[in-house]
Amino acid sequence: MKALEDRIREEGRILPGPVLKVSSFLNHQIDAGFIMELGAAIAEHYADSGVTKILTIESSGIAIAVAAGAALHVPVLFAKKHLTSNVSGDLYQTIVHSYTHGTDYTVIVEREYLREEDRVLIVDDFLANGKAIEGLLDLIGQAGAEAVGVGIAIEKGFQEGGMKLRESGLPVFSLAMIDRMDENGIVFRSENCQ
Amino acid sequence: MKALEDRIREEGRILPGPVLKVSSFLNHQIDAGFIMELGAAIAEHYADSGVTKILTIESSGIAIAVAAGAALHVPVLFAKKHLTSNVSGDLYQTIVHSYTHGTDYTVIVEREYLREEDRVLIVDDFLANGKAIEGLLDLIGQAGAEAVGVGIAIEKGFQEGGMKLRESGLPVFSLAMIDRMDENGIVFRSENCQ
Repeated sequence: MKALEDRIREEGRILPGPVLKVSSFLNHQIDAGFIMELGAAIAEHYADSGVTKILTIESSGIAIAVAAGAALHVPVLFAKKHLTSNVSGDLYQTIVHSYTHGTDYTVIVEREYLREEDRVLIVDDFLANGKAIEGLLDLIGQAGAEAVGVGIAIEKGFQEGGMKLRESGLPVFSLAMIDRMDENGIVFRSENCQ
Repeated sequence: MKALEDRIREEGRILPGPVLKVSSFLNHQIDAGFIMELGAAIAEHYADSGVTKILTIESSGIAIAVAAGAALHVPVLFAKKHLTSNVSGDLYQTIVHSYTHGTDYTVIVEREYLREEDRVLIVDDFLANGKAIEGLLDLIGQAGAEAVGVGIAIEKGFQEGGMKLRESGLPVFSLAMIDRMDENGIVFRSENCQ
């Protein structure tokens, strides 16, 4: 999606890791109109997939997931990263390793919101090593539901997450895929495919 | 807002605290179309307030804040509850006490996204004791920006947060205000005002 690639080039900052910082419009400050467009583009891609529910993970996935859910007219469920006292009843839970924070954390959803008959689209802002997505797939599997695909704003195509998911047969659609980013700037997959 | 009151009555569950659980449509599973309507209603109320930015707090405030931001055509900034490695640069930070979790937590925003010239609308899903809103007001104050009001989905009118904020002169607009909730059900302020 050219508008997203342009925005990343204009506002993105590359930090050691490499980490791409897009806090000006995607995951700290949010350009609300733009995120609605991103969500709509993901929704359009999966319009014929019979999606009944969108699943994301707090916090930075929520905005784009809600945007996609509004466009697809399906509910959005966000997995929570820890137990809170207003979560009750039976839970599906799994453990996700965060490379960013160097820690493991527990992710939960309430069973009543993820059903065997659900066809689930996973939506998130970033895909890198894919650990968060794998955790969400585990939750979907526990519910006996079906994952129909993954929709991502920015994929780090030089990390293995997306490749592993695609090799497993799961459709992965990323609005912007970065093949390289370093002190010389950013190269998108779309440039390498021209 | 009658549609929200109806939804709370139909789907809300009252847990000890009392805690109102509306996880089926507001803050775990999200009815994306409905949350866009809630955000639009808050935006309409503050349409003439010269809002330049919406401020909320992760995670459950993000969806309704993005909905309001999309309707007002202003950016949404969400305060983060802890330092993460992809936050860099100068921060405003404050400490918020959570009665729900019985702990204090640090809330941060990056300085570059909250400016002295900003007219800030605070949006959140719930208002009870008001501690989270007070924290956000502290961040706005540190930036030298102006808080123009607060927009809330569900206010617990029987707790002191909203009253204290209004007494301070800050406009507070809640789409549904609960005056009482217990084993006998829920009484909304709108019923007591008829």
